[in-house]
Amino acid sequence: MNLPLGYLYSATYAGIRQVKKDDLALIVSGLPAAAAAVFTQNRVQAAPVELCRRHLRLSQGLAGAILANAGNANCATRTGHAVALATCKAAARLLRLPVSQVLPASTGVIGVELEPHKIIGALPRLAAGLNPSRFDDAARAIMTTDLVPKTAFAETGLRRGVVRVAGMSKGSGMIHPLMATTLGFVMTDAVLSAVELRAMLKRTVERSYNRLSVDGDTSTNDTLVLMANGASGARPGPLELARVEEAVAEVMESLARAIARDGEGARKLVTIVVTGASSDDAAARLARSIANSPLVKTAIAGSDPNWGRILSAAGNAGVAFDPARTDISLQNVVVCRGGLAAPFSEEALKRKLGSPDCEVRLAIRGKRKGAARFWTCDFTEGYIRINASYRT
Amino acid sequence: MNLPLGYLYSATYAGIRQVKKDDLALIVSGLPAAAAAVFTQNRVQAAPVELCRRHLRLSQGLAGAILANAGNANCATRTGHAVALATCKAAARLLRLPVSQVLPASTGVIGVELEPHKIIGALPRLAAGLNPSRFDDAARAIMTTDLVPKTAFAETGLRRGVVRVAGMSKGSGMIHPLMATTLGFVMTDAVLSAVELRAMLKRTVERSYNRLSVDGDTSTNDTLVLMANGASGARPGPLELARVEEAVAEVMESLARAIARDGEGARKLVTIVVTGASSDDAAARLARSIANSPLVKTAIAGSDPNWGRILSAAGNAGVAFDPARTDISLQNVVVCRGGLAAPFSEEALKRKLGSPDCEVRLAIRGKRKGAARFWTCDFTEGYIRINASYRT
Repeated sequence: MNLPLGYLYSATYAGIRQVKKDDLALIVSGLPAAAAAVFTQNRVQAAPVELCRRHLRLSQGLAGAILANAGNANCATRTGHAVALATCKAAARLLRLPVSQVLPASTGVIGVELEPHKIIGALPRLAAGLNPSRFDDAARAIMTTDLVPKTAFAETGLRRGVVRVAGMSKGSGMIHPLMATTLGFVMTDAVLSAVELRAMLKRTVERSYNRLSVDGDTSTNDTLVLMANGASGARPGPLELARVEEAVAEVMESLARAIARDGEGARKLVTIVVTGASSDDAAARLARSIANSPLVKTAIAGSDPNWGRILSAAGNAGVAFDPARTDISLQNVVVCRGGLAAPFSEEALKRKLGSPDCEVRLAIRGKRKGAARFWTCDFTEGYIRINASYRT
Repeated sequence: MNLPLGYLYSATYAGIRQVKKDDLALIVSGLPAAAAAVFTQNRVQAAPVELCRRHLRLSQGLAGAILANAGNANCATRTGHAVALATCKAAARLLRLPVSQVLPASTGVIGVELEPHKIIGALPRLAAGLNPSRFDDAARAIMTTDLVPKTAFAETGLRRGVVRVAGMSKGSGMIHPLMATTLGFVMTDAVLSAVELRAMLKRTVERSYNRLSVDGDTSTNDTLVLMANGASGARPGPLELARVEEAVAEVMESLARAIARDGEGARKLVTIVVTGASSDDAAARLARSIANSPLVKTAIAGSDPNWGRILSAAGNAGVAFDPARTDISLQNVVVCRGGLAAPFSEEALKRKLGSPDCEVRLAIRGKRKGAARFWTCDFTEGYIRINASYRT
């Protein structure tokens, strides 16, 4: 898969995190790119979230660069706004961009002052390292408790040429997006306006990042940016826009799945499929309630086909449905039919649940067509180990 | 502390659970008692929940006995209603009560048929064992993953005599009451009408069981029954009703705290206090969001004063508040002032957080008076161990 044309990437260690691993990433578009973003719904928002929102408003949806650091969320800090602005200004000077075209993003510990000189001092070598092929390095530099970098790629052929989409994301805990989650940067070389991009982002985030939960906690720093620099020269025709959107959605869904699979302590990616609900929204709420149930997630960790917990979690979604018309399958084995136990081989199903990919399917019988897919992970002792000791 | 007059208790092993520990409890009031109950808000409700609600309606708030079993929730079962009714009928015959005055309650695994003959066969020896002093035996028989039985007592002197309140409850996981939780039976010998009892239960459950979360999962079987048999002969005067209510609330709050302290895998009882919110309801929502955050609860498990997670969890409550006017204390040590880090000795506070009683206090400055207390527990690897293997 080819990377989108016209983007450069770089990463370096700026000394923000204690472990010596790259913690500063830079993404630059050679051409001014249309950009749209969604942010955390948390009432407590980090300084870079507020500045990123302001820059997109000032630039009217144009962006030239994303400057992202790991190791410090720059949230609930005395100097947060000044630091975010100073680092964007320094990057803008180096890259000869208006400061409003530099989008900041931070992730890491909350409530610790971020020292701006660390970032500003690292910027010259970061800019010097910019290269179209250092995509993976940038994806690695934004990791926190992630075990693997998360990247995804798609392309689609339009009448006027091929357009490419590439995305990177980080995230492993504090994952329960309600508009966007974690950090995610998705680049395309399609020719798209900021208005088209915003509409596309709204729809694609709904079916990807908003269908993802690791632990039900929404971070203060969630930022998802979608950029289109037009470097392919291909402007999608009216009938082709849906194809580009599909490619963007594919990349974002793939990133959301990768985050769930790499959930803190997780050994299994769990896909929850709900069908037959009164609306897609009702289906998503049922799926979300199952995905957020620690009892469902510990049962899957233990390969235990304990469908009563799944039915009970669905019952807590605040959505009307008839348990007596509800079927539940695990790994395509029906374990509950019409709200009652169905006969199945416990031993065989336990083995199937040992897979790193588990599927929970809740189907409500009848004429309603509301459906949703949702991703989460199993819940293991590893999650506790990681989070009882993180920060200290 | 004395038990309320006029109640008898019994417990036996009926073979419902695999381990040979009492699993069937009977509570009988010698006089017909006024009774009120609240039940789970889960859309999926067990047969005994539905029958208990029906019996209270039919009897117009009179009850003579509670028949409760552990080891099987009698939920999502083909024969659920027939089994619950048959066991109530058998108990009514033995105790010479109208069947609608026998209230059923079940707790345990969901989706497994409950064999009625086990309960019916055990009833004669259960009834034969009835004794005013076997309160603790009954409390022990309703335990599931509980490590300790939960009981609480209060009494208050009225002009016409002393009235006593005693309560028992079970619960350790699947605890996130939204009207009632788990099983809880509270008895008093005060003279109260069913109407007075219902109003009292509504208010007291709001400040006790509804302020409790272990894991954010609401069970299908939650039932809380409050009975008043008048055996003390003391009818509270209009100005004394509040004193009886206070005694009832004290028992229920004590039971709620005991459930949180015995949360699956828990080593610490965590009390969350929120003040200065726009209303008591807003304060309760802020407290609930903190109590449900696995990141807050794992930090407390690790004695880590990670207040950023507390502020972030409050930000996710869907409640408007100004982080810049928010202070956070842990064990009475201010760790965050005005939304920013406050200086404190990390080592000293870590030691204090090693206590089995931890307090998180979030105070919003200003004139608003909305306040709430909420109970939860820390979140340890023990929770995962218990729930990855329960049932199998």
